Amino acid sequence: MPAISLKNHPFRIQPGGKVDITAIPTTDESLFPMEKKEGEELMKSFAKEIDELQTRLYAEGKQRLLVIFQAMDTGGKDGVIRNVFDKMDPQGIRVASFKRPSPLELAHDYLWRIHQEVPQNGEVVIFNRSHYEDILAVRVREIFPKSRWEKRYDHIVNFEQMLADEGTTILKIFLNISPDEQKQRLQARLDDSEKLWKFNPGDLDDRALWPKFMEAYSDVLEKTSTEAAPWYAVPADRKWYRDLVVADILIKTLKGLDMKYPSVDFDPKTITID
Amino acid sequence: MPAISLKNHPFRIQPGGKVDITAIPTTDESLFPMEKKEGEELMKSFAKEIDELQTRLYAEGKQRLLVIFQAMDTGGKDGVIRNVFDKMDPQGIRVASFKRPSPLELAHDYLWRIHQEVPQNGEVVIFNRSHYEDILAVRVREIFPKSRWEKRYDHIVNFEQMLADEGTTILKIFLNISPDEQKQRLQARLDDSEKLWKFNPGDLDDRALWPKFMEAYSDVLEKTSTEAAPWYAVPADRKWYRDLVVADILIKTLKGLDMKYPSVDFDPKTITID
Repeated sequence: MPAISLKNHPFRIQPGGKVDITAIPTTDESLFPMEKKEGEELMKSFAKEIDELQTRLYAEGKQRLLVIFQAMDTGGKDGVIRNVFDKMDPQGIRVASFKRPSPLELAHDYLWRIHQEVPQNGEVVIFNRSHYEDILAVRVREIFPKSRWEKRYDHIVNFEQMLADEGTTILKIFLNISPDEQKQRLQARLDDSEKLWKFNPGDLDDRALWPKFMEAYSDVLEKTSTEAAPWYAVPADRKWYRDLVVADILIKTLKGLDMKYPSVDFDPKTITID
Repeated sequence: MPAISLKNHPFRIQPGGKVDITAIPTTDESLFPMEKKEGEELMKSFAKEIDELQTRLYAEGKQRLLVIFQAMDTGGKDGVIRNVFDKMDPQGIRVASFKRPSPLELAHDYLWRIHQEVPQNGEVVIFNRSHYEDILAVRVREIFPKSRWEKRYDHIVNFEQMLADEGTTILKIFLNISPDEQKQRLQARLDDSEKLWKFNPGDLDDRALWPKFMEAYSDVLEKTSTEAAPWYAVPADRKWYRDLVVADILIKTLKGLDMKYPSVDFDPKTITID
């Protein structure tokens, strides 16, 4: 398998390019041409690497990593967070889930609640949904007029640029599933009594708006994939494959940070413990 | 191995009893009489249980779990958090570490920053150090006079009672190590270049105060172990054994919550996905 750098990653949305998300495949074999069983073995070695890299990030305590996940319902945000990030020490990571905003949150600009959750030094923060919903959902459900949400592309690009300039590494991942795959996953929730609670009849309303969401996602990916905060549209119809792609992007990003254990200002040889 | 309930757990600090922490063993074999290798196998099955129970807590979304860890330096707080809690979905847990308070925090009462970090519905929150430092460290280092810190036993008992009354389950764990074990662990940090950054020469000052800390811990455990928020003094000289004891207490606590997947207000059979 050839080494893929992040810059030429086939599923990176190249800044400045045109995007039609419906033309980007939701299944793929090119990056990890193997069977599921082999993929699960590979994941174990990825898990070890992730664990070591995050330990170093935490120890160094100087850099911050923000990983943003967006997807349609059942796209796999919860699954990928569990499968890829539970390799990390709970002490160094945090998940922020952005649901329907509270009255207090709505009484502020839409980036107010987001800003409070960005990572601190040494920390990995995962956003399960994000400020991108303030364009996507708002646009598709026609909550605000275009004149209001179209300004948000610039707001967000500028906000993320500021975070990056101040020391936060940002990774944005769209979990790209097909409408057929969503149908199967919704049905699986209906059929399994332990998963039924995850089924929200309102999800069917969003499903009916699939083409509008794809249009909105295409614009978001096109207008907000930057060198400072690139998007990846990860093929997500096959769960184990999706996990590998995300883990691989994560590992390469962490390796690029060139983290070092902190130096100390004493000579350990001179210290005696009584 | 006999089933140990939490109420009669040998390392539970029984509310109302006298406590001399130096008389409580820091090593033990009674709960898991086995070798390390066997213990690690058992931990794998515990891990699976923890994972399932936490998934259910999160799904149910009605109850909250707060796990407080206190220990002397090198006592194993970081290790036990990593080894026991990384079995949980990162989405449902959060670690709050309380370090030296910031000027903003010091400009409030000592429970202000604590209260902000308590768990919400469905969440597990782990405190790495806690409001107990506002008695322990403050007393031993003589930061405030006794007249000030001795009121805090009541404050804390009342605060935790309120949390419990409002739906939070509280578990408090003192990782009990011997001074000899601490000496070995500090030396191991000095001897390992990848661990050296964890060594803080100031830890030796606290080590010199060991007897005073044990006196302070004895009083804290005696005065603040309640039915609503019991303390466990876990023998922690052997790391794998300590992890098993903590995992077992955690599992029994979660099982006691009798969690249920949420019911839905629709009949799944009537729903068709287009």
